[in-house]
Formats: sequence, C-alpha cells, structure tokens
Amino acid sequence: MSSQSTEGENLHHVVIIGGGFGGLNAVKELKNAPVRVTLIDRRNLHLFQPLLYQVATGGLSPGDIAAPLRAIFRKNKNVRIYMAEVQSIDTKNKRVLCDKITVLYNSLIVAAGSVNHYFGHDEWRPYAPGLKSIEEALDIRKRILSAFESAELTDDEALRRKHLTFVIVGGGPTGVELAGTVGEITHYTIRKDFRSFDPQTARIVLVEGQNRILPTFPEDLSNACERMLTDLGVEVMTGTFVTKITGDEVTLNKESQETVIQSKCVLWGAGIKASPLGKMAANNNESILDKSGRVKVEPDMSVPGCSDVYVIGDLANYPYQDGTPLPGLAPVAMQEGTYIARLIKARLNNKSIKRFKYVDKGTLATIGRSRAVGTIWKIKFRGFIAWFLWLFIHLMFLIGYQNRILVLIQWAWNYFTWAKSARIITHVYEHAPSDQAGDK
Amino acid sequence: MSSQSTEGENLHHVVIIGGGFGGLNAVKELKNAPVRVTLIDRRNLHLFQPLLYQVATGGLSPGDIAAPLRAIFRKNKNVRIYMAEVQSIDTKNKRVLCDKITVLYNSLIVAAGSVNHYFGHDEWRPYAPGLKSIEEALDIRKRILSAFESAELTDDEALRRKHLTFVIVGGGPTGVELAGTVGEITHYTIRKDFRSFDPQTARIVLVEGQNRILPTFPEDLSNACERMLTDLGVEVMTGTFVTKITGDEVTLNKESQETVIQSKCVLWGAGIKASPLGKMAANNNESILDKSGRVKVEPDMSVPGCSDVYVIGDLANYPYQDGTPLPGLAPVAMQEGTYIARLIKARLNNKSIKRFKYVDKGTLATIGRSRAVGTIWKIKFRGFIAWFLWLFIHLMFLIGYQNRILVLIQWAWNYFTWAKSARIITHVYEHAPSDQAGDK
Repeated sequence: MSSQSTEGENLHHVVIIGGGFGGLNAVKELKNAPVRVTLIDRRNLHLFQPLLYQVATGGLSPGDIAAPLRAIFRKNKNVRIYMAEVQSIDTKNKRVLCDKITVLYNSLIVAAGSVNHYFGHDEWRPYAPGLKSIEEALDIRKRILSAFESAELTDDEALRRKHLTFVIVGGGPTGVELAGTVGEITHYTIRKDFRSFDPQTARIVLVEGQNRILPTFPEDLSNACERMLTDLGVEVMTGTFVTKITGDEVTLNKESQETVIQSKCVLWGAGIKASPLGKMAANNNESILDKSGRVKVEPDMSVPGCSDVYVIGDLANYPYQDGTPLPGLAPVAMQEGTYIARLIKARLNNKSIKRFKYVDKGTLATIGRSRAVGTIWKIKFRGFIAWFLWLFIHLMFLIGYQNRILVLIQWAWNYFTWAKSARIITHVYEHAPSDQAGDK
Repeated sequence: MSSQSTEGENLHHVVIIGGGFGGLNAVKELKNAPVRVTLIDRRNLHLFQPLLYQVATGGLSPGDIAAPLRAIFRKNKNVRIYMAEVQSIDTKNKRVLCDKITVLYNSLIVAAGSVNHYFGHDEWRPYAPGLKSIEEALDIRKRILSAFESAELTDDEALRRKHLTFVIVGGGPTGVELAGTVGEITHYTIRKDFRSFDPQTARIVLVEGQNRILPTFPEDLSNACERMLTDLGVEVMTGTFVTKITGDEVTLNKESQETVIQSKCVLWGAGIKASPLGKMAANNNESILDKSGRVKVEPDMSVPGCSDVYVIGDLANYPYQDGTPLPGLAPVAMQEGTYIARLIKARLNNKSIKRFKYVDKGTLATIGRSRAVGTIWKIKFRGFIAWFLWLFIHLMFLIGYQNRILVLIQWAWNYFTWAKSARIITHVYEHAPSDQAGDK
C-alpha cells in the first residue's frame, strides 16, 4: 500500500474509475485541461463491448476489439493509469483505496459499468454465462463450439439433441445478436463440418419475457427482427419466463404453462445490474440506489450529498430528460463522460454549463449477415441497409486504427467465405494443456 | 463411451493422434487415398507454434496463429475429426480409448508432440511457465505486462526492481525470441507509457547452460545473436545453470559460483520432453523410450514390435540419418507426416518406398525487429536480410489465407509504429471479472 504523489501535485486531481466508454471520454476531454488525471481500471484495456458477441461466436479475436489503455493515452501527458482493483471509496478523506495503492482525489468520476444480473438466481450463473467481459465471451465461444464437438462424439441421439439445443435468454440486442449468429453458424459456417449430424438440425431458442423482442425498438422493427431470426432457424418465444436452469435443461413458463427444454448450452442476455462500485460511491447509502443498484444522481451527475463525486454511464440513474432513467448504452456513457469533464473544467474556472442533455442518435441491432434493424435520427432501417450502417458505425467508433483494419478485413473475409476463422476453443482445461497427458 | 462406425467401414482406417505439423501433413497427404482417416486432438485447432512467442509478447492474437481443424479439412471428405483426449492405446485390439469415444484403427499415427520439461524440478513450473500452448502464451503475456503494471503501482524501489527484472531460462530459439522481444518492448513499445519509472531500466537476463546461445546454430551466428541481444539491453549469461526458482528470486550457478537474481517474472524456454502419449504408443515398454520419453522407432517410424503404430515428430527418436536423433522442429514433423502417409498408401498397394530422409532446409531465429540469424540451404544469414527471410518463410507456412493477411498487417503496423497492439491482459481473475466487485 502506498499513497503516490506525482509532479504537478498542486493541480486539481481528477480520478476516474473505469476505462469503459464513459471513463475514456472523460479522460479525452480533459486532455489539455490544467488538471492531473488518474484512470483506475482492473484491466489494462478498453473493451469495445458492442462487438463482444462476435468474439463469443468466433468471428473476431479479443485483441481486435480491445485497446491497451496506455496505448490510447500515450500522448496525454497529464494522465496516469493504474491497473488496480478498487476496494472502497472514502469520500470523507477524498481517497480511493485499491488493492495495491491509495489515490487521493479532488474530483472523482465513477464509471464502473454494470455486471450480469440473474434476478436472485445466482445458481444459474455457472450454466448460463452472460456477455460482459472477454473471459465470458471466450467461455460462451467454448460452450457453443464444444456443443457441436460433443454432438459429433456421441451416438446417443437424445444426448446429441441436448448438445444441439441452444437456449438464449433475453430478447434485447445481446440476445438477438447471439441467437442470430448461432443460427448463421449452424446454417452456413459449419454446415459441412461434421459427419455424425447435420448442424442445420440444431435447435436455437430465444426467450423473452415481454411480448416482443427488442422491446425498446419500434414495434414494426421488432417484428422484422423476429422474421429475420426465424429465417435463420431461431425459435422466438415471447411472453415467456425462465423459471429454472440446470446444466441439462431449462424450464420455461408462458401464461402459467410450463415447458422444459433439454439443453446443455444456455446463454444469458437477460439482465444487468450496477457494479458494486455504485454502492461504494453512494457511501453505502441504499436510499440513493435504485432497484438495479444504480446511483440516483443529481442533475449534475454528482452523488447526493457528495458534490465532488460523479457517477456516469451504466452505473448512473439519470432521469432528468423524460422522467425515465437514460438507458445503459455506450452513447449515453460517452456523452456523459465528455459532459462531466467539461463540467469539472468549467467549475475550476468558476463557470457553469448547461444541464446535460442526451442526444439520441438511434440504435441498431444486427441479426446476422446482411440482416439488421434500427433507427438513426428517428429514421427506421432494416435489412441490408441497416446492416451496412451498423458495420460502418461500429467500425467508426472502434478504438484504434489497427483494430479497425483488422476487423474490416475479417468482416470482409467472413462475408465472402461464410467462415468464422476465430472459432478456436481456448482454456479447455484448467491447467495448461501441454502439461498434461494427452494428444497435444 | 461409444465405438463409432462410419460409411465406408471396409476401407483401411488410419487414425492420427495430434493435429500439429506432423498430423496435419499426414492427413493432407491421405486426401485422395482409398482410406478412412480419423484425426483426434484435444483441441479444435492447429497451432502455428513458431509464432507463439509473438502471442506471448502481445504482437499477435491467438486467433491469428491458430486455424480450426474442421476448417482446414472441410473439403477432405474421407476425414473425421474428434475433439477428444486420448486415455490409452490398446495395440492388441487396435483401438484408441478416449475420454468420450473409442476408435478402432488399422494404422495408427501418433503425433502428439512434446510438453515442457523442468528436469525433475516440477516445483518451478508455477513460477516459470513454458511456451507450448495458447494458454501458456497468454499466461506469459499476463506476467510480462503485469510486471510493468505492478512496478507503476509501488513506491518501494526494491520491489519495483524485482518486478522489472525478467529472467529467461534457455538460450535456444524460444528463449532468444522471448528475450529479444521483451528487450524491444522495454526500449520501444512501452518506453513512454509509465510515470513512476523508465521501462528502459528493466533488466532482462537470458540464461543458457551451454557455452553459447543457439548451440545448434553455427558459432559465428551465436555470437552475432548475442551482440544483437546485448544491443536490446539483454544480459546473456552462458555456461550458467538455474539451481532454484521461487516466486521472488532465481538462483544461478556458473562454475560453482552462486548468484541470486531478485525477479518476479521468470520464463521457461529450457527444455521439452515427449508427451506421455509416447509411452502409451510404446505399450508402456520403457526400454524403447529414450531419456526424454521419445519412442525409439524403427527405420519405417513404426514402434518396435508393433508394425501398424507409427510415431512421428517431437515424439519420435529417429536416429537413422547421422546417428543423432532428428531435432524436434516443425520441418522434421511435416516431412515425417507426409512420408508416413505415403508409406501407408504404398503398403496398401503392396509396394515399398525408400527410407525416410530429412531434408534440412535450414533454421532461423529472430531476435526482434530487423534482427535475426540463421542458415538456409547452408548459407548463413544475419541482420535485416535474415529477419526478412524469417518473416517471409513464416508467413508462407502459416495455415490459412486470412491468418496470413492478418499477421502481415499486424507486422507491418508494428514495424512502422513500434506498437504491439495485442498487449492486452486477459484472464486476470479466476472468475469472470464482471461478476466481481471492481471498477468495470
């Protein structure tokens, strides 16, 4: 443990927790400001979450959608980066206590994001991984690809069906993207790869509790999305709730009717909640947390009663626009990050700036090759044009020129060959494979 | 457990264990032969091991140097692939028993490769990972990158030095490539990335027991290699043996003089031994195994006393050329794989072919950007030209067009920017990070 000091110690010190979209934009906006900036993250990378499902489905490698934080901020001389895990926030003494270091702040921006939420059923977690980190994406990739490998190895037809049944829980963009891509894999990518079965016979079920998938999208786009998924062989079950998940089956409930699906591969895209850091930022004051654990911030994004601590992104409940909290989307976090940095700069000059206003440029969800739906500036798109816009926008916002080139090449390659060349299974064994008996 | 049958069951069945260089070339050579082929590997991928050190040092992603076996053999209609772990070989009943399946064979090719060897000091393994698998490469990457991150977090100068001291054990190509790349990283890639220390002050020690590094290369090339390493700040210690490794220090012995180096990051490139599958192929007959566990095969690569089981690649001791066993190199395994497939085809036609003869086209080792040494067709190369040849040959032999394009782009990018954009740390925590308290 040590309390680090640095040159320019008399400068206002902005500490930012989390190198996601919110934190990254705050650091960028503070580039030439007369402040010291410290960015704390437990990872050494910024992850481009919107493409994480492509890592999970073998289309891209983790390195393609991650950028080292030190590389991003190499030229920001006023930035220090600590790879450390925050243990607690001491708002009284204005310091952040990490596992290996303690950092004093003048202003603190907490942008720690969200984690998977199993609605009180944490026992489902081992059987139904969510998609929030590189490790989870690789775990999902391993489960999807291993299911086909296991199906090839058995001649027990019932067991094979169990391996070839995929249940994706949650009909939001993550669930839709996963289901669509698994459909694409079975119908195209690996169609001719196996000898004991036809991958096209795989069953893919997308379960959504509300009465339509993509419930935050316009209704006709939800319907278009459902048709596109059906074309790819995905069964869409709306108004349906999961009541039980084991390693062998999923129990569903629709209008009090129970159905049991035999499946060894369940993927979770159903819910997220705030990172536990929200509670720390709120000084353990539960009354300013909402049901999902997000901090109910003031209009200036500060924590009630703590004007030098700001909470942004997925971790914030910011209801000042139309009454409902802003959604947990990358553009919200990005705009909030930029705003809060401007606010801090203004306050240092004893100035004030206008209240934050989120500019909703639209959202897109992709269902697979050439298929997507979404709205941009309130114009609805679907099909190839939506998909093309999706590609373009995601490439544009991806961090790092090299990543953009690598992703573009792989997309082009996958488009023309139908392949997904990153469909390699890693971390199969807990120990390093070469240390064990086995066929290399 | 099941014994699978397949169409064309009356055809001669060639079973190949291991999808490395040897196994891959055997399958390829059997493409249009009147045989059934089954390839068994515990991974679903072929790994291009010669570039694994670039994954370990953040220059490439695992997906760039791995190709899914099913993608490689998609068009080989006579090939079945099983992702399974071999448990034993029953040469009497001609069957391979795996964890989930049992496979009958007419001819068996065992090409299971090698594993790390700690010369009776398996207790060093946790402190000094070797470089044989993707997981080990990512572990090494994590250790190297985390060392710098930890150095940034402390203000205890002695501890910082310990984090900034890297000891690489073994002066063969793997050790040289690792040491050279770590030197390049400290001097160029991350030179300006930290605030608490100058990465150029990192100490990199390469330890080799023999009296020169690259002992299998011509002596003048060893000397040239040592100079290139010294230029990159690497201390080369020859005639030096490691006698102890803990998580905090390495004890060295040179001519009975002991030295202790404080280091938290030790990498193992010192030794390999045969996979335990060699012993299985030898029917547990230790008398036909050499010291490294390799099978002392007959001139036709069959196991003594077992004419339908062939052992090739790193797993074989094949001394029929100049008395010494052929080295454990990719070109040896590749040529042996092709040969053994031809031999099996010939024997099915009651023909014979000439004894195997390894054609040594040369070897190259790279020390870092623009630096390499080696011989090709007995002509010695060093410096930029050797490095360029190395690049060209490795690209040429890499499996998959897409991988070649991706690797080429990353090499070009890294060359012009000095960056290593895959320097991301994954699998930091045992559990999925988003499930834990923490900043993001």
